[in-house]
Amino acid sequence: MSVRYQPASAESILTVSGIRLGTASARIKNWERDDVLLIECEEGTIAAAVFTQNRFCAAPVLLDKEYLTLQRQYGKGLRGIIVNAGNANAGTGAEGFARAKQTSEEVARILLCAPEEVMVCSTGVIMEQLPVEKLIAVLPQAASRLDASSESWIRAARAIMTTDTVHKAISTQVIIDGEPVTVTGIAKGAGMIHPNMATMLSFIASDVPIAADVWQALWRDVVGVSFNAITIDGDTSTNDSLIAMATGQAKVPPIKNQHDPRLVLLKEALLDVALPLAQAIIRDGEGASKFITIHVEGHDVETCRKVAFSVAHSPLVKTAFFASDPNLGRIICAIGNATPEDLDAGRVSLWLGDVLVVDKGGRASSYREEDGQRVMQEEEIDIRIDLGHETHQNAKITIWTCDLSHDYVTINAEYRT
Amino acid sequence: MSVRYQPASAESILTVSGIRLGTASARIKNWERDDVLLIECEEGTIAAAVFTQNRFCAAPVLLDKEYLTLQRQYGKGLRGIIVNAGNANAGTGAEGFARAKQTSEEVARILLCAPEEVMVCSTGVIMEQLPVEKLIAVLPQAASRLDASSESWIRAARAIMTTDTVHKAISTQVIIDGEPVTVTGIAKGAGMIHPNMATMLSFIASDVPIAADVWQALWRDVVGVSFNAITIDGDTSTNDSLIAMATGQAKVPPIKNQHDPRLVLLKEALLDVALPLAQAIIRDGEGASKFITIHVEGHDVETCRKVAFSVAHSPLVKTAFFASDPNLGRIICAIGNATPEDLDAGRVSLWLGDVLVVDKGGRASSYREEDGQRVMQEEEIDIRIDLGHETHQNAKITIWTCDLSHDYVTINAEYRT
Repeated sequence: MSVRYQPASAESILTVSGIRLGTASARIKNWERDDVLLIECEEGTIAAAVFTQNRFCAAPVLLDKEYLTLQRQYGKGLRGIIVNAGNANAGTGAEGFARAKQTSEEVARILLCAPEEVMVCSTGVIMEQLPVEKLIAVLPQAASRLDASSESWIRAARAIMTTDTVHKAISTQVIIDGEPVTVTGIAKGAGMIHPNMATMLSFIASDVPIAADVWQALWRDVVGVSFNAITIDGDTSTNDSLIAMATGQAKVPPIKNQHDPRLVLLKEALLDVALPLAQAIIRDGEGASKFITIHVEGHDVETCRKVAFSVAHSPLVKTAFFASDPNLGRIICAIGNATPEDLDAGRVSLWLGDVLVVDKGGRASSYREEDGQRVMQEEEIDIRIDLGHETHQNAKITIWTCDLSHDYVTINAEYRT
Repeated sequence: MSVRYQPASAESILTVSGIRLGTASARIKNWERDDVLLIECEEGTIAAAVFTQNRFCAAPVLLDKEYLTLQRQYGKGLRGIIVNAGNANAGTGAEGFARAKQTSEEVARILLCAPEEVMVCSTGVIMEQLPVEKLIAVLPQAASRLDASSESWIRAARAIMTTDTVHKAISTQVIIDGEPVTVTGIAKGAGMIHPNMATMLSFIASDVPIAADVWQALWRDVVGVSFNAITIDGDTSTNDSLIAMATGQAKVPPIKNQHDPRLVLLKEALLDVALPLAQAIIRDGEGASKFITIHVEGHDVETCRKVAFSVAHSPLVKTAFFASDPNLGRIICAIGNATPEDLDAGRVSLWLGDVLVVDKGGRASSYREEDGQRVMQEEEIDIRIDLGHETHQNAKITIWTCDLSHDYVTINAEYRT
């Protein structure tokens, strides 16, 4: 069950020149489905990546960071990504790192490239060694299925799922200098944690030709307002990995520096893929019955973000949303708990949907409970907070979250037998 | 229902020389019980106080901070405290502040002191004006019931309750220089939020003679390891107020400075009252079925605290506790999410009770699931985390929290009709 999210059909997915995808079933967990994804990138592809900040980052994340550094140091690109679902290879120490490395070496053998040109991603159970032999055994099969079609993207989106109820994939195309540039992406996770850690993974590919540092800066910006602007319960997993591949095969003159005006169009295209994918993760959050958008303005970026996440993380606010209860007191309390140094409570205003409920720190005189109820009874709800600070840069940030329901407790309080 | 907490009987409560308490029923909410507490302090009493950091602090908190400053500036003491339950007088703007001030003026008239010698505390509904006339109407009644007895302390503990299921009161006595010094305290709240905000309030009194700045520093330290070392869901209310009164009437030479060796004994006595009260708030947390102690060591104080609170706040860890599930992955993830800059995952060890479960970043080879289960099935559970950092000051901190259950969602997702 997801809040108003329709999974993509193959018809809506555009292929990306230079990318092929193949899946296989390693049976790492006892699932009747493909659980391994191999992505092959033609020579000339470069990668940008954003990883989890969790200090217990998994072995594959450690390896990928190392490899990305080597790629940039030696002017190499990305030639492949191997993803497995069912075991996160996290909390596995030196042995886990060795197994991640071994995986990259086996993939490199098959793709005829260097190991450091292969990135490894895992998602699933933590603190159990990766059954690497099972994974390696199916690599030839995944390679034999490498395919550039739209269907292969859908198969890929399915092979990386853990607690997701629907696959997540989307495409867009933009015209730059009269030529089409395609962006296609898939994502999974950050659903509620089952016994497995519901890692957030996303793989986006474009045929745009672009310099590596420009691509990394662009991807980081895009991630900042999409994948890093969603939250379910405040936890980031040990494995979050967001990788963007640029194959360079579009017939467009290369984008070489930060000031290229075509970056505006390209960024919009990336957002047209990243935002819906990130929001789909929320819509598919286990137990989610509400899709909540929180806008905060009227202060600097850091303060606006602190306030937004404080509201989004508050169990008291989230249970009120579950109850469709316009509980102003809890939202106000969550704003105050973000404790930004110079927040003047007497300047704060709050809207639920289009209804002004708090006017400069006090209950709005125009506010009637039934108007608040009307807004809160919808599945999709907008909150807008104006912190009313006059001297700081007037930032505007938007994040997305979901409610906290009985299903959340049920799913997460199941004993793991 | 509370996790193994027995409310105090009057027999166990010691009176404090210089303190009288009286209660009354103002019917601010439609409760069949006393909801107003008046505390009278004889001349010579000084106050120490710690308030909420929430930027939306309530009108009474703003007033009390002002009054405390005036008390210190002009060498005045505390002569009275007026507490009402049912309305927090928060989010009420200038009108709310005026009503809090008016309350202090009325109490001052009755106690024959100056308004700034009276502190005002409120707990209850947010964003509705305090029905101050109802409160003022019963002040004479509360004053007529002023009493120094043990029973009056119990009545006081009851009069300040909102979402608590049991009153919380405790006493201790220590011998200093051959003379008895008494410490008695009451507390309420920080239970789960009903439609009302479950503010944390505590009023502790001692007959010790002590200089005001020494008392404030001591109280702040004690609060730091007790009331500020508990958390239910990470939110602090708009009204949290922790007030310690020292009447000076014990027959002990006054404590005049920070280096007085008798402060060691006095601090222990304060902790013997503050710690059980703070823990009682957790044990009585609505929906709580587990009382969880989290010890963190092996790094500096700030890092240990960040890690401890990250674990205590994680809904994923808390639902696992509800399920009695020794889910190591979630605890590890929560530790990593505290993202202290120099956390080396490979140095972290974790014990559930006496069972080593994570040994330097990896699953302990000696760990068997059934040993973890044994610990998690208890109502009271200890977690110990060693961050293993060698170069920093080796701090040790302890905090307390409870689990996240279905009852939590049920209670907090009720529509407020």
